[in-house]
Amino acid sequence: MPLKNFIPPRRLLLGPGPSMVHQRVLRALSTSLLGHLDPAFLALMDDIQALLRIVFQTKNRFTIAVSGTGSAGMEASIVNIVEPGDTVIVGVNGLFGTRLGSMVERCGGKAIHVEAPWGQIIEAETIEATLRRSGPVKAVAIVHGETSTGAWQPLEPIAKLCREHDTLFVVDAVTSLGGVPVEVDRLGIDVCYSATQKCLSCPPGLSPFTLSDRAMATIRARRLPCQSWYLDMALIANYWADGSRAYHHTAPISMLYALREALRLVEEEGLPARFARHRRNGEALIAGLVELGLLPLPPVGHQLPMLTCVTVPPHIPEAKIRADLLSIYGIEIGGGLGPLKGKVWRIGLMGESSTEAHVLTLLNALEDLFIRGGWLSTPGIALRAAARIYGRTTS
Amino acid sequence: MPLKNFIPPRRLLLGPGPSMVHQRVLRALSTSLLGHLDPAFLALMDDIQALLRIVFQTKNRFTIAVSGTGSAGMEASIVNIVEPGDTVIVGVNGLFGTRLGSMVERCGGKAIHVEAPWGQIIEAETIEATLRRSGPVKAVAIVHGETSTGAWQPLEPIAKLCREHDTLFVVDAVTSLGGVPVEVDRLGIDVCYSATQKCLSCPPGLSPFTLSDRAMATIRARRLPCQSWYLDMALIANYWADGSRAYHHTAPISMLYALREALRLVEEEGLPARFARHRRNGEALIAGLVELGLLPLPPVGHQLPMLTCVTVPPHIPEAKIRADLLSIYGIEIGGGLGPLKGKVWRIGLMGESSTEAHVLTLLNALEDLFIRGGWLSTPGIALRAAARIYGRTTS
Repeated sequence: MPLKNFIPPRRLLLGPGPSMVHQRVLRALSTSLLGHLDPAFLALMDDIQALLRIVFQTKNRFTIAVSGTGSAGMEASIVNIVEPGDTVIVGVNGLFGTRLGSMVERCGGKAIHVEAPWGQIIEAETIEATLRRSGPVKAVAIVHGETSTGAWQPLEPIAKLCREHDTLFVVDAVTSLGGVPVEVDRLGIDVCYSATQKCLSCPPGLSPFTLSDRAMATIRARRLPCQSWYLDMALIANYWADGSRAYHHTAPISMLYALREALRLVEEEGLPARFARHRRNGEALIAGLVELGLLPLPPVGHQLPMLTCVTVPPHIPEAKIRADLLSIYGIEIGGGLGPLKGKVWRIGLMGESSTEAHVLTLLNALEDLFIRGGWLSTPGIALRAAARIYGRTTS
Repeated sequence: MPLKNFIPPRRLLLGPGPSMVHQRVLRALSTSLLGHLDPAFLALMDDIQALLRIVFQTKNRFTIAVSGTGSAGMEASIVNIVEPGDTVIVGVNGLFGTRLGSMVERCGGKAIHVEAPWGQIIEAETIEATLRRSGPVKAVAIVHGETSTGAWQPLEPIAKLCREHDTLFVVDAVTSLGGVPVEVDRLGIDVCYSATQKCLSCPPGLSPFTLSDRAMATIRARRLPCQSWYLDMALIANYWADGSRAYHHTAPISMLYALREALRLVEEEGLPARFARHRRNGEALIAGLVELGLLPLPPVGHQLPMLTCVTVPPHIPEAKIRADLLSIYGIEIGGGLGPLKGKVWRIGLMGESSTEAHVLTLLNALEDLFIRGGWLSTPGIALRAAARIYGRTTS
């Protein structure tokens, strides 16, 4: 039987990504195609580079979109920097730190894990102690926003340590970019990658990526070629960044159309306003969740505004509520990964998903389900707590 | 100054890819997003797998779309199969064979190049002789349709040799899939990858990919983990193919919407009709080009129907004509790569680009430019030659 036209159910995407996508970005996706060497397309690539430099707060010449998802950007960071035998200090306090460590090992590097419990941040002192007692360290790799726990990692003290110890600083900004400041140049971050489907509110499929001159020099001075041909930044530089525009692989044209439009929306809003919006909606969400007995996993001061990870009390049927949110209300939120499976919810307010209306819609749905389940007796309590953050008069 | 809305110039894409994209596929791209673990999205992945099995002519359970372009599929083939020290025989008769060899070496394998001049095919006898005199060979890797030369490689004799010598058969079907038969099961191909932007007429960004059970067993029996985490098929199988649907990386959702629709169009046309269309339009194009003194590089019988590579005589200004085609007529064709730079044109009639109207439009534009340049004195000669192939009465 032939397949029918695909019509997705209505969804409010409040999980850990993908986030909601603006109609202008969806429209850009359906733009007719150009060849990847067409002068008009090369001009569009220039636009994207310029716009990405704004969100990364960098002047790095090598600022591009990797032709793969955020994990491809993570892999590109590691395989370009690390050669067999190199030591990398990796902050591991969640799934994505663990993944970074695995990638270091898959290219013959030695990953020294500096660990913290899931939900906590990595202490700069521990990184410093590890730097002191290790031999030469090629890089320190840290996750800025741990998507698996909602922890917001301070970067500045670790950046300072990297400069003092003359080691490269690799930062995973998959969840953070476009939602909180990612100050590549001011902090001296050497390698930074992100993903399009989080706070940039573009569909998944590309990984914004930037390299400092110091990182690029390290890549150009490699003893062995990068083990990945597809992600070899020395080759990709010829297409994206060096003006020669030499063919490497066929660029994902439609996705780049979408990214340009998504970045244009970021620029129109302005980074300060965008950060303030994410902060305020994150605060309102947490204020509401707390009233429902759902407490954030990371400590106060280290809770990401765009990804709130809350512990679900044992008496609440975690998976059932999540399934009900999806099937009854059309709202997607995320469950826990790894050791947090069945124990937490991960609620994303990223990019277009970060609005007052979405916060209230979710809190209302949760209140409904909690009342039905008998776990809440005061209707409106979460909504009122959120409304107070927004400065609304509540009775 | 803020960037304007991006409006691409009108283009008829008759290069080596991307090809023209059907309006239904462009529309599918702009469908609102679902989460990558949403039940409705997982069902769409099932649809894609079923449709890909049709075009690959396979029952392989592991038939997926890799989250990257065709080169990512190529790299996935090599890094999953090859371990350090493994020997791979690689057919090298163009850019993409060379790339395969480079990837083998980047994962510590030994690539034995079986070479042929660019434009020629790889002789099975040479593969056989190499198999006989080499030690254990992990795989033979061959490009079915060499996008850099237009050569159409016969697969059957090499497939037979692989079975006799108990070695894996890796086939690059980037340009061929959906335009000529790629008979994965009948020939016993173990690893086959393609790209979406050629004869499937979907935008670039995904790589259709299939593994035989034999190939999957080889991957599961690896001594070392795959050097790529992003392309590790043992991990990806948990998300795509094994029913557990465990999160690996965020799928490129919009691109998968597009691929489903593009594959639906393939299924509606039917493979035999689609192959016949590509064959006929390729014949008509060559008939016309020959009248202009533009002779195919590969020998008769080994010319791809969807990618015609013709030698440009020295008196014709190759790059100038290509630029004029683009700027005056809005038609994109491809130039030569590597040693063929400045010496050939590569004209693609892939998927939606393969129509009688496009063949005639291109031949007409070339006739115009050739007449202006003084290299043609008989207007209509190429058009009439093409029309004869289509069975049109011509005066």
